[in-house]
Amino acid sequence: MILTVTPNPALDLTWHTAALDPGATHRVERGVARAGGKGVNVARVLHGAGRDVLALTTRGGATGDEFAEELRRSGIPHRLLDVAGPTRRSVAVVDRRDGEATVLNEFGSPLDAVERDELLAAARRHGADAEVVAVSGSLPPGVSPDDVAALVADLTAAGVPVVADVAGPALLAAARAGAAAVKPNREELLVATGETDPLRAARGLVELGARLVVASLGSEGLIAVSDGGAVSARLGRTLQGNATGAGDAAVAAICTAIADRRSGALPAGQAALASLASRAAAWSASAVLMPLAGDLHPDHLALEREIILEPR
Amino acid sequence: MILTVTPNPALDLTWHTAALDPGATHRVERGVARAGGKGVNVARVLHGAGRDVLALTTRGGATGDEFAEELRRSGIPHRLLDVAGPTRRSVAVVDRRDGEATVLNEFGSPLDAVERDELLAAARRHGADAEVVAVSGSLPPGVSPDDVAALVADLTAAGVPVVADVAGPALLAAARAGAAAVKPNREELLVATGETDPLRAARGLVELGARLVVASLGSEGLIAVSDGGAVSARLGRTLQGNATGAGDAAVAAICTAIADRRSGALPAGQAALASLASRAAAWSASAVLMPLAGDLHPDHLALEREIILEPR
Repeated sequence: MILTVTPNPALDLTWHTAALDPGATHRVERGVARAGGKGVNVARVLHGAGRDVLALTTRGGATGDEFAEELRRSGIPHRLLDVAGPTRRSVAVVDRRDGEATVLNEFGSPLDAVERDELLAAARRHGADAEVVAVSGSLPPGVSPDDVAALVADLTAAGVPVVADVAGPALLAAARAGAAAVKPNREELLVATGETDPLRAARGLVELGARLVVASLGSEGLIAVSDGGAVSARLGRTLQGNATGAGDAAVAAICTAIADRRSGALPAGQAALASLASRAAAWSASAVLMPLAGDLHPDHLALEREIILEPR
Repeated sequence: MILTVTPNPALDLTWHTAALDPGATHRVERGVARAGGKGVNVARVLHGAGRDVLALTTRGGATGDEFAEELRRSGIPHRLLDVAGPTRRSVAVVDRRDGEATVLNEFGSPLDAVERDELLAAARRHGADAEVVAVSGSLPPGVSPDDVAALVADLTAAGVPVVADVAGPALLAAARAGAAAVKPNREELLVATGETDPLRAARGLVELGARLVVASLGSEGLIAVSDGGAVSARLGRTLQGNATGAGDAAVAAICTAIADRRSGALPAGQAALASLASRAAAWSASAVLMPLAGDLHPDHLALEREIILEPR
């Protein structure tokens, strides 16, 4: 089983418009409400790919009711902790012309100390039975980068690899705690390390302690860096579509690549990196082709054969 | 009591951003969810102004649960009919720089014949006890302009004045059915009558049978036209703010002006028109100053003294 932990879930609302015209009134088809937040998207991708997954997160308020109801209908195995603060909303308005999404992300409601401890304890408990644990997305007030680092360190010490898709101080803390993988995008790399060159920035995170760094670089694909090698992976063409959720699809691919290693060793050498990077780039591209975050295009295997790999 | 009828209610979601940048991701404070739809906004304004009001509308699905819960908390007396289709959402993203709102309005779920008949029967039943009835907003699939016309005609025959804020064929049908007032905006006037001059278009609706036409013209204020006179009313300055709900505030003002006539006669002569137009223009301007539809700025009495009236 792959466990995904989402400290700051969201009810994702997506509308499609012919064209978004600021200041204008638009008539639109009914929007889609989905349980979201990065870790929930990762779980949705994994569930869609036929993997055994458990999505752990919180829910509160009326938006939390809708979140829970959608998650139940989706069939994704999940464990929800009731919290006092209402589940936040995230809004995406997708322009039908080019798939470009305009996004509003609400700040999350704070977790109090009891709620935070319950979430972390549940992550440790379910994580102990997992092949891989993914911790994804922003942290609500009340959950600190140190909390993430302690979770990563404890699971790693128990032999459970952790993939962390977190930003800022939490990214650095997860690397220091020995995360099996971290997956920053270009901006997160720059903000956390102050280094503008993604390859150098990724190497810096490996030096801090991350076993693997997969940096997603938008239409330029991604780079995967370990202390045993570095590889870039990209599709040889630019896709038009909704990039929301592309990073989550990459995290899902990384989780499967780690879970699939029979040796128990992390993918670190050049060949293993190439295989992982190829799948992550293909799943990422597949997500761009789909209108909603958490879905993979059925052609993702064909896309994987198109991926261009280069040693770095 | 003033009854408002809202055939196509919406859960109104409003977010405020520093600036709306299409294609970008924005971090925003938690949005506000409110029971909305034009008639609900009219009821909210009337309730806020201390008037005895009843908001009649429908609710369905998870969004309907949130709609009902917010309406309950607001304290606005209401009667909700349960329907199968989920209550639609309406989204407003307000730019903090100028108050300009970018709006997405979902189409409403259809009402089936039983649901439609229940809504219309409830409107007749509660309307019989009302001083004034306001019918506001778009019609969901399953409710026809003829249904609106029949409601207007029946209530009018029973001596209950009806204010209709409806568009297209329903606007023409309400005028023909002898509505006490209709309140189109400039575009609705043009679409319904084909006439570009608002005053001539308004006179056309009076000729069709409307006892009073109040045409809202945005920053130019409004014109009020009956077979006894015509007057324009405007604030001598342009307000920056969120114009969503300004028309609903005007409808609320019209309802009070009609309800306050002790004679029972409709306001038709020049003096009565001037008084009504002045209040409607001031309430409309007050709504622009408030961040959410359904609220009046506390200075609306001072604004009313600023209104510039001109016979037309």
